[in-house]
Amino acid sequence: MADKTYTACVLIIGNEILSGRTQDVNLAYIAQGLAGVGVVLKEARVIPDVCDTIAATVNELRAKYDYVFTTGGIGPTHDDITPDCVAKAFGVKNVLHPEAHRILQSVIKPEDLNEARLRMAHTPEGATLIPNPVSRVPGFKMENVYVMAGIPAVMKAMFDSVKPTLRGGKPVLSRSVSCDLPEGAIAKGLGEVQAAYPALDIGSYPAFRRGGGYFVSLVLRGRDAGLLERAAQDVAAMVKGLGGNPTLE
Amino acid sequence: MADKTYTACVLIIGNEILSGRTQDVNLAYIAQGLAGVGVVLKEARVIPDVCDTIAATVNELRAKYDYVFTTGGIGPTHDDITPDCVAKAFGVKNVLHPEAHRILQSVIKPEDLNEARLRMAHTPEGATLIPNPVSRVPGFKMENVYVMAGIPAVMKAMFDSVKPTLRGGKPVLSRSVSCDLPEGAIAKGLGEVQAAYPALDIGSYPAFRRGGGYFVSLVLRGRDAGLLERAAQDVAAMVKGLGGNPTLE
Repeated sequence: MADKTYTACVLIIGNEILSGRTQDVNLAYIAQGLAGVGVVLKEARVIPDVCDTIAATVNELRAKYDYVFTTGGIGPTHDDITPDCVAKAFGVKNVLHPEAHRILQSVIKPEDLNEARLRMAHTPEGATLIPNPVSRVPGFKMENVYVMAGIPAVMKAMFDSVKPTLRGGKPVLSRSVSCDLPEGAIAKGLGEVQAAYPALDIGSYPAFRRGGGYFVSLVLRGRDAGLLERAAQDVAAMVKGLGGNPTLE
Repeated sequence: MADKTYTACVLIIGNEILSGRTQDVNLAYIAQGLAGVGVVLKEARVIPDVCDTIAATVNELRAKYDYVFTTGGIGPTHDDITPDCVAKAFGVKNVLHPEAHRILQSVIKPEDLNEARLRMAHTPEGATLIPNPVSRVPGFKMENVYVMAGIPAVMKAMFDSVKPTLRGGKPVLSRSVSCDLPEGAIAKGLGEVQAAYPALDIGSYPAFRRGGGYFVSLVLRGRDAGLLERAAQDVAAMVKGLGGNPTLE
């Protein structure tokens, strides 16, 4: 019986990514984590801090994918509007979450727990919390939407706490063959290996070598370790047959 | 008279980004470049190497934004399908481009110019080329869609050659105030400054300090240098008034 494929989308919320001020690093971390639990990341989007855009995009994506992971916009300042907008998307109020309130009270002195900070204890009605072992202020989950911080250290901690709870298929494994021939020389043979293994996804990624010139990483991905091994051997043999010197990794 | 706002979207095409194998760095580069020529980057998407998805997304985005910049998928291997899919989006054939053909002939020996490499001289019918001073194989422009390589060094060279041709508004400028108070302490005052300057976009970005603890970067962005300066002074005064030690950058 074929596995059900569990799909996901990452929604990066933040003007700072779209202005180029901040280099996103959360996507790659979530992507690797999802592959490890057999969830297929189908798409990622970066959108600005605009409430209608956030709400509409959340609604589009949660209908389309099994999981939506958002990053960014859950702090105390005026530009931290994600919880409000997710509430709007679900048509519910953004309300004080008693457990989040207790967590904030345990780390913030009563005289410092001002209105702005109290906003961080608000979640859409019906949300469950995502723990934050780094700075305590929690994220939350609303049905299949996981709302996480943008700061990478915090986001990672939140995602790590959520990851074991995700339903996925078999983990996606990968093998890599490093190749010293140019892409144009191996393209035909590589296409033939791909055609012979439709269950695998084979990618060819040229990169510059520090000392000058290109090398090519041929990356095979799939859920069947045996198939992956056979295909990687076929790729290596193909490269060797063309006079190259492949390295399996 | 108000400037027309020129908008853009970046479309990152590649399984390697969605698998977490490759950390995208192209988005931040394009974002900064667009801000410099007064084009507002409204969205970015990452999608897999699936032709129907690429064609449908290109069509959605080119109707929605003034400019669409794609990265990835223009090499000789089986997974380099972007030109085919952009042709599909526009309802035209992907054909040999005489100028691209001449460029390839000038850098590839006739006996090496195999079918796979010749694919790199194909563009959707009606496309104009985007020069590639790094590795010569060109990108192309099809109406408002700019199709560029995924390799950062090549993408940057292509984008740099396109950038001076873009119509934009006044450049987006930014000022930054570094703040040693926590976000929760300045949130109210910062919101008030934002409310007083609706033409500016003020963001608050906490980050971990290497030595431990947080600091907060308050970033102001807008097209009016005078307004930006006044607002930055107001933010700094607000932080100072709360007992902080702001640094204008």
